[in-house]
Amino acid sequence: MALIVQKYGGSSVGTLERIKHVASKVMQAKQEGHDVVVVVSAMQGETDRLIQLASALGPEPDPREYDMLVSTGEQVSMALLAIALNTKNCPARSYTGPQIGIMTDRFHTKARILDIKTDLLHRELSEGYVVVVAGFQGKNERGDTTTLGRGGSDTTAVALAAALKAHECHIYTDVDGVYTTDPRVIPEASLLSHISFEEMLEMASLGAKVLQMRSVELASKHNMPIRVLSTFSNNNMGTLVTFEEKIMQKRLVSGIAFSREEAIIAINGVPNRAGIEGYILGQISDANIEIDMIAQNATDKDTTDFTFTQHRKDYDKTLSIMQQLGNELGAFSVKTNPKVAKLSLIGIGMRSHTGVASKMFKALGDVGINIQMITTSEIKISVVINEDCLEKGIRAIHEAFELDKLSTEKQQVFLEL
Amino acid sequence: MALIVQKYGGSSVGTLERIKHVASKVMQAKQEGHDVVVVVSAMQGETDRLIQLASALGPEPDPREYDMLVSTGEQVSMALLAIALNTKNCPARSYTGPQIGIMTDRFHTKARILDIKTDLLHRELSEGYVVVVAGFQGKNERGDTTTLGRGGSDTTAVALAAALKAHECHIYTDVDGVYTTDPRVIPEASLLSHISFEEMLEMASLGAKVLQMRSVELASKHNMPIRVLSTFSNNNMGTLVTFEEKIMQKRLVSGIAFSREEAIIAINGVPNRAGIEGYILGQISDANIEIDMIAQNATDKDTTDFTFTQHRKDYDKTLSIMQQLGNELGAFSVKTNPKVAKLSLIGIGMRSHTGVASKMFKALGDVGINIQMITTSEIKISVVINEDCLEKGIRAIHEAFELDKLSTEKQQVFLEL
Repeated sequence: MALIVQKYGGSSVGTLERIKHVASKVMQAKQEGHDVVVVVSAMQGETDRLIQLASALGPEPDPREYDMLVSTGEQVSMALLAIALNTKNCPARSYTGPQIGIMTDRFHTKARILDIKTDLLHRELSEGYVVVVAGFQGKNERGDTTTLGRGGSDTTAVALAAALKAHECHIYTDVDGVYTTDPRVIPEASLLSHISFEEMLEMASLGAKVLQMRSVELASKHNMPIRVLSTFSNNNMGTLVTFEEKIMQKRLVSGIAFSREEAIIAINGVPNRAGIEGYILGQISDANIEIDMIAQNATDKDTTDFTFTQHRKDYDKTLSIMQQLGNELGAFSVKTNPKVAKLSLIGIGMRSHTGVASKMFKALGDVGINIQMITTSEIKISVVINEDCLEKGIRAIHEAFELDKLSTEKQQVFLEL
Repeated sequence: MALIVQKYGGSSVGTLERIKHVASKVMQAKQEGHDVVVVVSAMQGETDRLIQLASALGPEPDPREYDMLVSTGEQVSMALLAIALNTKNCPARSYTGPQIGIMTDRFHTKARILDIKTDLLHRELSEGYVVVVAGFQGKNERGDTTTLGRGGSDTTAVALAAALKAHECHIYTDVDGVYTTDPRVIPEASLLSHISFEEMLEMASLGAKVLQMRSVELASKHNMPIRVLSTFSNNNMGTLVTFEEKIMQKRLVSGIAFSREEAIIAINGVPNRAGIEGYILGQISDANIEIDMIAQNATDKDTTDFTFTQHRKDYDKTLSIMQQLGNELGAFSVKTNPKVAKLSLIGIGMRSHTGVASKMFKALGDVGINIQMITTSEIKISVVINEDCLEKGIRAIHEAFELDKLSTEKQQVFLEL
């Protein structure tokens, strides 16, 4: 007997049939003896429909009213799920974010949760109800409805789980869990039985869109284990995202994340004086362009090479700024490549194991891929390569680290309920 | 400068174009210097769509969750109207019924308003906002969302107007106001410039579906004038529904209401003993059949004739009950007619004027219509006639009382703002 928070996304509640299916999954957890709080997103397509209505009235809808409007999407699905549960004689009560006491800051359309009142939740649970909560929303100090921004339902679920000290937070999606890399690109990708918060954050920030980043941060902060599961398959336990100490079986690396549509810009032979890097990046950020990776090499004591990557959409604007800067600073050259991709190997194990980087670079070299830039963090090595080599590169590293064989460890690391 | 509560129905906010049009009407009132509170219904078709979703999940959706679901319809239209107003630089804030403080009893799907908190309303109005309120909903003591039942937005508007001591409550619909009779039946029908609460209640209960009856009762109780107006026409002042003393120009009669699909049942020669009427009607109500008109004639001191009408749908059931009763009581005969209609002449003036009834009966007689039953109240005379004579009867009375000439008085009785 434990307290479980379950979250079902928009595709999981996208039709009445699916809502009935979700109801049966909720009842299963209830029948296993658990207290259950369910967080739901809006039915697939509903939020977009509401946003289109608002947009048709003018270019910048009033943010307070925009939140009032779009928050109805979750209210519809929560009520329908509660109706489905009650129809099956499973007592359930639904609550909007404001009603259940999810308190946020005042920033409409991108509010952050500040506090969750748990009195009402505890009372309803103790009376045997399944509590169904609308995801993605709360209220500010004035009592106005706020929304948490896209994907905010994951955050609602984790915040509720943390506030209630739940046993686990289950995030149901349309994928089976977290894979070693995107299975649409590498079919041999393995489903991970577990992954650490830190690894998941690196995966999420690098484009693996299973969980919203903020929800992983929040889970990590509160040591709240998240299990990513498929709504549509009963046959696996998904992926447990948890804190490192709970993971009994250590792995060297856990997965490969990647992002396409990057551009790389290098300015070489810049006079090496204090503050030069800040000056260069200041010009870029003044133009509202976001930078991704940054690397600097000292080539000799008088000059320096400075390289960064960014999303390809801003490439032309950046190029003209950098050419001007090159002239102004008397740089040796400005070299760019607008058709690159980023590939990152992630693993908590690499902290204590040397040789991960060299094995990765060797794997890429063996298939003839030229590395154009490297950055590293404690649990991640990222490289920039030509975009048309991306798949070949992922596969080479996937094989070198035998990531396709991870599946066999699947059943070993689940926390006991 | 006054405080006006405006209410727009589902067809008035049925599309984004119409919502923009409503915004311009609200702004017009605001520009005339008034404080404005706007009550909106759900966009046309939306409530039905939500009800269908609930019904598809089971035959009897949980009432609390049903209210949670259907109350989103008004929330969408209120937010869209507030967005439209803000887009046009008219500061507006929308509130659900629960948020603004509309307190109801605990009866889901048919709650009654018990109290309205006005602090927030007054604060928003004093800061210059148009306050847009979702109609048809409130919250009970537990904080759960309740709905007032179909047409409840009229009631919300009148209750808000009464609580705020508004100058008038404007109900915008898709008709121009209240007519002397249904203009689809009698094209010569006149638009009434004014009508008393009592007359309006008689009209409403007799099938003129312009205003929800409960809202008229509430307005009458609180002496809150209601003006019924067309959303789509700027050229008339609609119909003012108000208390009798405010109406400067008295009329003999105000209109003709009617209802089709009635059936009449008469039991004749029943032994006349105390309680016999209650015994007969008890049999009918035990079968869950609703009775409309009732009349009794004492024919001689030993027996009595007892006649009533009801909706035609229950006719067969009633007939068999009455035939049994006739045998049991030894009645002389049971006479019925399942194809009759009710026609009622309504007018506060008839209280003090004799001759209204005889003029009405003569008008019907002149066109060869046989009256099968008569009942009267202080401001109403109702007759039952064959359904196929209904139109001819309405027209005859309409002409006899010169109701087609009422339009000329139109501009005379408006209350000053």
